[in-house]
Formats: sequence, structure tokens, C-alpha cells
Amino acid sequence: MVQSINPRTGLAFGPVFEDTSLENVDGLIAKSQAAFALWSAATPAERASVLELVADGLDSHAAALVEVADLETGLGSPRLTGEVARTTFQIREFAKAIKSGQFVTAQSDPFVEGAPPVGHPEFIRTLQPLGPVVVFGANNFPFAFSVLGGDTASALAAGCTVIAKAHPSHPQTSTQVYEIAAEIFAAHGFADVLALFHGVEAGSYALKSEAVMAGAFTGSLRGGRALFDIASSREVPIPFYGELGSVNPVVALASGLGDPKGFATAYLDSLLLGNGQFCTNPSILFVPAGSPVLQEIADQVAARKPTPFLSPATKKAHDAQREVLATTLGSAPILGESNSDTGIYSAPAVIFTDLEITQKNPAALRVECFGPTGVVVTYSDLSALIEQLAELEGALTGSLFAGAEDENVAAVVKALAKRVGRVSWNSWPTGVAVSVGQQHGGPYPASTNSLHTSVGLHAISRFLRPVTFQNFPATLVARLS
Amino acid sequence: MVQSINPRTGLAFGPVFEDTSLENVDGLIAKSQAAFALWSAATPAERASVLELVADGLDSHAAALVEVADLETGLGSPRLTGEVARTTFQIREFAKAIKSGQFVTAQSDPFVEGAPPVGHPEFIRTLQPLGPVVVFGANNFPFAFSVLGGDTASALAAGCTVIAKAHPSHPQTSTQVYEIAAEIFAAHGFADVLALFHGVEAGSYALKSEAVMAGAFTGSLRGGRALFDIASSREVPIPFYGELGSVNPVVALASGLGDPKGFATAYLDSLLLGNGQFCTNPSILFVPAGSPVLQEIADQVAARKPTPFLSPATKKAHDAQREVLATTLGSAPILGESNSDTGIYSAPAVIFTDLEITQKNPAALRVECFGPTGVVVTYSDLSALIEQLAELEGALTGSLFAGAEDENVAAVVKALAKRVGRVSWNSWPTGVAVSVGQQHGGPYPASTNSLHTSVGLHAISRFLRPVTFQNFPATLVARLS
Repeated sequence: MVQSINPRTGLAFGPVFEDTSLENVDGLIAKSQAAFALWSAATPAERASVLELVADGLDSHAAALVEVADLETGLGSPRLTGEVARTTFQIREFAKAIKSGQFVTAQSDPFVEGAPPVGHPEFIRTLQPLGPVVVFGANNFPFAFSVLGGDTASALAAGCTVIAKAHPSHPQTSTQVYEIAAEIFAAHGFADVLALFHGVEAGSYALKSEAVMAGAFTGSLRGGRALFDIASSREVPIPFYGELGSVNPVVALASGLGDPKGFATAYLDSLLLGNGQFCTNPSILFVPAGSPVLQEIADQVAARKPTPFLSPATKKAHDAQREVLATTLGSAPILGESNSDTGIYSAPAVIFTDLEITQKNPAALRVECFGPTGVVVTYSDLSALIEQLAELEGALTGSLFAGAEDENVAAVVKALAKRVGRVSWNSWPTGVAVSVGQQHGGPYPASTNSLHTSVGLHAISRFLRPVTFQNFPATLVARLS
Repeated sequence: MVQSINPRTGLAFGPVFEDTSLENVDGLIAKSQAAFALWSAATPAERASVLELVADGLDSHAAALVEVADLETGLGSPRLTGEVARTTFQIREFAKAIKSGQFVTAQSDPFVEGAPPVGHPEFIRTLQPLGPVVVFGANNFPFAFSVLGGDTASALAAGCTVIAKAHPSHPQTSTQVYEIAAEIFAAHGFADVLALFHGVEAGSYALKSEAVMAGAFTGSLRGGRALFDIASSREVPIPFYGELGSVNPVVALASGLGDPKGFATAYLDSLLLGNGQFCTNPSILFVPAGSPVLQEIADQVAARKPTPFLSPATKKAHDAQREVLATTLGSAPILGESNSDTGIYSAPAVIFTDLEITQKNPAALRVECFGPTGVVVTYSDLSALIEQLAELEGALTGSLFAGAEDENVAAVVKALAKRVGRVSWNSWPTGVAVSVGQQHGGPYPASTNSLHTSVGLHAISRFLRPVTFQNFPATLVARLS
């Protein structure tokens, strides 16, 4: 049972959503499986055209969706308007990709005359959708990583059907998005390719269903790992694509700081974007000892205003982690402004420390403080810093600020590339473009499978398995691939 | 501790191999990790040229290798000579692929002007090797799926290093292959990219090592699942590519039987190839009731001679499974000739049953009888047969024998494609060509990850993870990808 909470007031509002009963979860999965027979048999072009209509549907309801999402998440109209645009762009990009044959086209491997190992029959390597997929909506992106977010859109583009779990912090937004899409799918002969349900127990239960062939998740390490364990320990294990959070390192060399004031502003903007509730906020900034940037950051954070948390649980976890960090590092946070409202707020904060301290407490750099808190680590020995980078947990992104001619660039980039899925050059990690070259995933715990991405077109590949047709006559192949 | 056994005599021979101590496993992994730094930094062309020298090295020792492998496995000189050729062909194909940039080339995604979601920075999506990989050698392919088999070759081509567990049924062959390769790697500056160890406990222990980034395995469901569980339940889970065995269906429609005598011969040849110890032998053949093929099979199998098992354990498991099948299906096997030698033999056999019986005992069709035993199921109702196919466990391959104009082809192919990784048309499932279109993998339990293949060039992709470079200047990208 869940009810929306307005983060700006802390007050509950709107309808109460009951947890979906396990019996009803079974019913949704059975319908999803039936829908899969039709949806997977549709051509990529057919699927693409329906997905484009769904994107149009969301766009035409954008204002109403933003309004309810803002009440539920406090993320603000501008950000949410952009997020709806990103979400529908994403759906259309996946549609465009499969329409043009990207990721779904069969690979032809013609007959080769001769004895083995050289000779072989003709092979047509096709890619077939896995089946119904359970998608767990994220807290922090009520559109782009939720009911019709990247996981759902890529699974649908692949030809899978989706049973989506609504995130409890935005049940109304989830329901409205679902209803818009469901009506369009049904109107075009594809009822039940998308289903919506509520409840933690229902989520675990769905992932155990024999008919479910994959899971996708964006959220906390604890929750994601529990679901990964369920998926992996089934009698028939299934792939589970979890994006579990990330402590993202940013390294500034002296050659890359530029204007200290501008650098500090850009850092805090990226750190506090979405109240620090992105998976790509710059969690740890390494700065040369004695840099004027340090004072700039301290001065500027003190003047920053708080923005609301997504939920009371998010604030609680953040505040506890900030406390752990401050205690472990022995350094009181420099706080920004507080908010006397009744809403769910904490002051923005930066904790300053140095490399000698983090060397003694490497575990402190594995604490994801999901919210408006950053850690700034000063260093004087670059090789010690590079050693420290190797101690970091797997992360989604790493950034390097440096002059292109700096002789230390290669060593830092190499160290970052070992621990992350995306390395950015003189740019902040937030802002994850939906594109074919994007990589949003990384070594565990950034993701449960570092071979894949949850953002960008390659996300489709997570839901397709190869099936090769050997020695088939051309007339049959045309009907099969 | 293990010693070779000659399957033709049942007698042990040659040196005793001690299990590698856990301390020594740690040492091997540490060396492998150090070697990874060099090997992963080598260009694909450099790696390819060393791999080609290793292939040359194996070829130049082929006669001696075949001799010892034949003593240890009883597979016979012709088969083993072909297997060495296939193994070195496979190494050269992986080398050729990476040299030409296949699977390892970075993908360029140029800068797009404009506001998000349309605009984005430049991305260069590279593919980076995971790290040291543990490869578990298979029983039934002492070369092609063993120390320097497909798993090792594809991991090395990807830029990973390999710690290989020797299969206890051919420790001498494993050691000789390892020594030939290790000398060549070392001579070219890449010592320790390949390591060899012995022992079950050492294998589990290696898979738990923090430095190990993936596992690959070909073998039994029980052993493979235990290792998959270890890999998945680590604090940092790693991908585990297990090929765990397969009950391969073959469907013959009346239109596809051709000459009954020739069909029966070809079936038995495929069934009994390698004493039925392939993962792709035709486990279950569905034949129209009343077909003259049935009598042909019965007559011909009675005249077939036994060939030795790989090991006493393989024979024991096979004989027990055959007993289970015969009892469950209520049908005594039609046996071929016995062998009075002291070696490890069982008579070839075919168990005949019909669809009404298997419908009542679908579990019987999930029993992999790894050895010289086939099940022939007669059917009179094709739609009941198609329903039965849906009850099968995931398999590596499925075959269909039918006339191209037969109106039932599409329905059967569709049913097979849902349960297997490769569908063959009018051809038997054995004989797995190493090629880019090959798919050797399938829904669990055929493999632990149906998105990948353990044979064919795509196998390289199992050991690479994407790392995207965002916004990097051209001069730097050239050094990085």
C-alpha cells in the first residue's frame, strides 16, 4: 500500500495504491506471455511504428504528466519537462534503430566449400527476443528510468513484453504513463505488451516466475543485489540488468582547473543537479592541494539553497551516509543553506579531506551518499592518487580535467578506464545522452553486468539472444529472420 | 591427485598429477594479473601474431599430442587429428578476426550540435578486456574445448589472460598443450598469459578470487551450475559462461525421411559419433508412427560396435541415465554389440517410445543420457508433437528433416527456435563449425547465458566490456582506443 508524498511539504496526497496481489501478478504475466507471441512476431517496422505512437501519446500529455510528477518528486517543471522529452526521444531512437535494422538484423555467413574445419554450411544468425521482462522503475527518473523509460523501451524494441513495477515514490505518474501507453498498444492490436503492478513482494514474486525471461532495475545496491540474487538462483537463471548506484570519481590536474570560480560553480551545479540524486553526480573530486578552487567551493556551497529529496527514505539514507562519511574522514561538512519548510530537505554539503586520510580509509570512498553531498579530496602526490583510484569500487563514470598536453593524462585515464564504464574529458559526468556510443554501466556495483548498458541504443542487445539457422533454403530463411 | 586412465583397457598409466595447492593457485592468479597488464595493452595485431605462433606450435606437435590424447581418451587418431586441426584453425580465426578489427574496434559516435536530448558530445565506444579468466577444460574435447580450446582462445584474443583447469581425464594432454603454448608466449614477452592447474577444489577457489573477472566452462549440468552459483554469489559477481549439456531434439516429418536406410545410418552415425559424448548428439528423434525408418534403426543399431567412454565416471553416469530412461518410458533399449574387453564400454542403444508415453512423462525428455544412447519417439499427431517440443528444456541445437514445400515446416521451426540456439535444416546436429554465424549456446540448461556462444567468432564478445570516452580530443583518442 502506498500513497504519494509531496516532497516540498512532506504531506501525503491522492489515491492509495494497493500492492498487487500475487494472484494478479500471475494474471499479468500470463497476459504478457500471450502478448509476447504477437509482439515478438511483429516486424521491427511494425513495432517501431507503435512505439512512435506511444511517444507521441506521452508528448501530447506532457503538461499533465509533468504536473503530477512534480507534485510527487519535487524535481521541478523544467527538469521534468526535459525528462519527458528525453523519454520520448529515447523511445523514438530505439524505434528508429530497429526500423533501420540496427541490433536486430540477421547476420549472413555463407556456405564455404571444403572439408572441416574450413568448410561449413550456410548460417543465418538471427536475434530473437527473450520473452516477458520485469522492469523495476527507478526513484530518481519518474519518466526516463521508469514505466516507459530506457529499460522498457529497449525491451519493447527488442520484441519483448514488459511487466513494470511502479516505484512507490511516484505511483500516480506511473499509472498515468501506463494508461496512456496501454491504450495505444491495445488500439493497435497489441494489448498487454505493457503491464503495471505495485509492491515489493509482488516484484520479487514476478522475477521468480517461470515465464519471465529477464529483469532490469535501476536503484539501490541493496535492493538491486537482492533481486540479482533471486534472478541468479532460480532453477532456470535469467539475466538481471541492475544499475545499482555509483561513487563517481572526478580527477582535476592542476592543468585542468582553469578559472577557479567557474570550476567551483560547474562542480557544484553537477553535484547538486536533481538534489544530487543522479547516478552520475560527481561523488568524489580530487583536487591538487593548495588549489584556489578549494576555497571557492567552500564559499560557494555555503550559499547554495536546498532542493527537496524524492522521498523521506532517500533523505534518511543520505543523512546517515553523510554522517558516516564525516565521522570516518574526521571532517565536518561545509553546509549550504537550510530550509525551514516542513518538506523533505537537507542542506547541500561538501566534505573536505585529503589523500593521506582516504588512503587510511579506502572504504570511505565506497560510500555512495545519494543526495546533495560531495567529497573533495586534496592530493599532492599524483602516483598515490592513481593508486587510490584502483581502490575505488566500479563506477558508472569517471572524469578528468586536464590540459591536453599534460604528460600525466594517459596514466589517469588508464586508471579511470579500469574502474568505470564512461570516461569524460574536461566535462562533468551528469547529463547522459541517449546515443549509440553511450555507455551507462560499469564494473560491479555500478552494474550487475558490465558488458551491457542501460542507456543508449546498445541497451536493446540485453534482450535478444542469437538463434542460428543452419543450411536453410533461401525461401524459408526469408520467412524466418 | 589424478592419473590418466586408458579407456580401452581401464588401466591407469603415466605420471600422477597432484592437485594444485590453494597457495599455488593464488600465485598463478597473481602472475596472470601481472601478465594481463601487458597482454591487454598489446595491440590486437600483436596478440594475433603471438596466437598464430601458438597455433603453429600445436600443429608442429600434432602427432605427439594425438598419440597421448588417444591413450587418455580413446577417441581415436582420425578424430583427434581433426580436433587438433580444428583447434588451431579456431585460434587462427580468432587471431584473424581481431587483426581485422572484428569485435574489438571502437565505435565512433560523433558530436551532435544542439540542446539535449538531440545534441550530445562525441563518444568513442571502446571494448576493453575484462581481466584474468578461469577456463574449465571439458572432458569430451581434449583440444577444442580444453586448455587451448575455444574459451581460452577467445578470451586471449579479447586481451584477457587465462588460468586453465586441466580436465582430470586427460592431464597429460593438457600439460603438453600448456607447455608448448607457455614456451611460445614467454619467448615473445608474454609469460604467464596462460596458466594451468589441477583439482576440483582449486577450480572453485580460483573462481572466487577477487582478481578473476570471468569464468568459462563446458561440462555437466551439476558441476557447471555449482560453479555458476559461485560466480554469481561472489561479493563482486562475475560472468560465468557455462555450456552445461543438452538434450537435442530432431524432428523428422514424413516429407523429410528420404531413403529409410540412409536416414537410419546417418542418424546412428550422428548419435554414436565420439561414443555419443558430444553436446550436440541427436538425443531425441521424433519420427512419424509406422515409418519404415523405425525398423531400419532397430536393425542397424543391433549391428553397431561399441567405442570406449572417456572415463569410468562418464560410463557410470550414462548407464544410470539409460536405466532411468528405460524404466520411465517402460521400454527396453535395443542394444548394439557388446565388448568383452576390460576397457570402459557400453553397448550402443536406442530406446523406442511414442508421444503418448512422453506426454505423460515429459521429465524423461529432460534426461541427458551422455553416451551412446538415443531415444526415438513416434508420433501421429503433429500438433501434439509441437506441444511436446515446448516442454523440452533449453538445448544447443534442434534439427528438422522435411521437404521444403511441406506446409508444417514453419510451425516446427518456430517451436524449435524457441528452445534452442541453432536450428538445422535437413542436417544432423553434430559437427559445429567455427564461423562467425555459429551459435553454440541456448536457453538454460544448454548454457548459463543464452545471449552468448562458446563456439564461433562471437565468443570473443563474452570477455569484453564497453568503455566509452566522452569528449576526448582526437590526439588522445588515438592513444586510447
